[in-house]
Amino acid sequence: MTETTTAPAGAAVPAEQRAAEEALTAKVLASFAGTPDPRLKQLMQALTRHLHAFVREVRLTEAEWEKAIEFLTAVGHITDDRRQEFILLSDVLGASMQTIAVNNPVDGDATEATVFGPFFLEDAPEIPLGGDIAGGATGQPAWVEGTVTDTQGDPIPGARIEVWEADEDGFYDVQYGDDRITGRAHLYADQNGNYAFWGLTPTPYPIPHDGPVGAMLAATNRSPVRAAHLHFMVTAENHRTLVTHIFVEDDPQIEIGDSVFGVKDSLIKTFATQPPGTPTPDGRDLGEQEWARTRFDIVLAPSPF
Amino acid sequence: MTETTTAPAGAAVPAEQRAAEEALTAKVLASFAGTPDPRLKQLMQALTRHLHAFVREVRLTEAEWEKAIEFLTAVGHITDDRRQEFILLSDVLGASMQTIAVNNPVDGDATEATVFGPFFLEDAPEIPLGGDIAGGATGQPAWVEGTVTDTQGDPIPGARIEVWEADEDGFYDVQYGDDRITGRAHLYADQNGNYAFWGLTPTPYPIPHDGPVGAMLAATNRSPVRAAHLHFMVTAENHRTLVTHIFVEDDPQIEIGDSVFGVKDSLIKTFATQPPGTPTPDGRDLGEQEWARTRFDIVLAPSPF
Ligand SMILES: [Fe+2]
Ligand SMILES: [Fe+2]
Repeated sequence: MTETTTAPAGAAVPAEQRAAEEALTAKVLASFAGTPDPRLKQLMQALTRHLHAFVREVRLTEAEWEKAIEFLTAVGHITDDRRQEFILLSDVLGASMQTIAVNNPVDGDATEATVFGPFFLEDAPEIPLGGDIAGGATGQPAWVEGTVTDTQGDPIPGARIEVWEADEDGFYDVQYGDDRITGRAHLYADQNGNYAFWGLTPTPYPIPHDGPVGAMLAATNRSPVRAAHLHFMVTAENHRTLVTHIFVEDDPQIEIGDSVFGVKDSLIKTFATQPPGTPTPDGRDLGEQEWARTRFDIVLAPSPF
Repeated sequence: MTETTTAPAGAAVPAEQRAAEEALTAKVLASFAGTPDPRLKQLMQALTRHLHAFVREVRLTEAEWEKAIEFLTAVGHITDDRRQEFILLSDVLGASMQTIAVNNPVDGDATEATVFGPFFLEDAPEIPLGGDIAGGATGQPAWVEGTVTDTQGDPIPGARIEVWEADEDGFYDVQYGDDRITGRAHLYADQNGNYAFWGLTPTPYPIPHDGPVGAMLAATNRSPVRAAHLHFMVTAENHRTLVTHIFVEDDPQIEIGDSVFGVKDSLIKTFATQPPGTPTPDGRDLGEQEWARTRFDIVLAPSPF
């Protein structure tokens, strides 16, 4: 292991004490020896090792253990069908992004993945190429265009593109508590792998921070704000499904730090602001409204299966 | 670190991929750099390191991550004022005992500590020396006697002794859902540090296993049963509070494995069965009932403060 992952750990603990602590870990590991599913056995034993190593390394006090139980209890109690505080917790600890990193190794020029987030909906409306995903969500119109190709550079006709984003107030449709479906849609790449749609220039928004995870961020002086982003999920037969975002160049939150560690350099795109009256690519009349345009060329890795 | 605690870990992961994964961990660690409380900073950074190391080592899949979120959500939802599934989870993973081990280092001849468990109540009735804690709980009467001394062997007059246990059906009073207070009491050592009371010979009982923790034990072929035990909490000025149990020699569950890893050899005591009619130490008439007797000499460590 490298310095990043190695603990300084308990130099001051007498050998006899350390042996007793390690014997306890060994006993717990042995308790999982009869697990029929070998993968479950591996997961439970690894979890045990890392959990015990954490307790030993920090010399966790009984009062801190109680605080941890209270914290998890509060996370459990705020979680319901509309609010998933355990996912937020995993996100702000970088565990979600680490899982994504492990499962989406860099594959040549394939577009990089990032966090899925809690705001995807299965049944977003279909729009034609060049259609508008806003559906009433407010914000600066943004023309988004690009291609979907494979790692050989060949187009992937008919690739399915799901896109979703917050409005300019930083809220997704599902956060309003009514039944609106706005700021989300799906469309299909054309026979040359080209796609285009009207979205909104993304704005930064905080993850829900009125719960225990928000309290933890506050206690550690961390911002709950996510760098502005537009979500993509791109699927095509024989290709690895890509879940990602694009981010907005010059968004100050990129420097401050995305609260869930989702930013990757390759995903930062220029949203070029167009003065009012600039002709739009599809002839849409935006009157005196400012708009933006950006390009996102998507490269899908081959399916591992 | 020893073999017990070191991971085999990702030998097959290419260096570039590993570097990207470790860079992500470093970024999360850095996000906690501004934490005002240095201990909180240490805890959050160590938690991040161990959590990420776990994800990387097992190459956690996205489906497994989702399962973990679902599991924690279920643990949260079954937890209420009467049921603490997060404590059960900590207990069956040995994290509770590891915390106890870290905080209660072996101190000469001082009696060893073990898990607190979820069934203690603050306001158990006081009984006189030689009194009965059963209060209506059923089971084989057991005479428990001993001394409370310090590590020099000097008696600790007036030490407060809290005792609590399940009835012969394996249930604590609080599990019946009525207001009964049975199988628990507190008493004080006399001026020579002696104590004695009537309790019940402990019987094995399962931890509550109708929830997600029970499902995990079933999936890993682990018994939910605790080795039979009688809980003690002993407090005295200028001494470290002792939270412990005594276990019953020849209880087969000791060999099978206590579900929360609470057994220590020094805490296993002989409960000597007495044939019906055997005179009791205090002249109590038990008629034709069998009874048992045991001895537990308690040694308190000096307070660390
Ligand atoms: Fe989002
Ligand atoms: Fe118990």
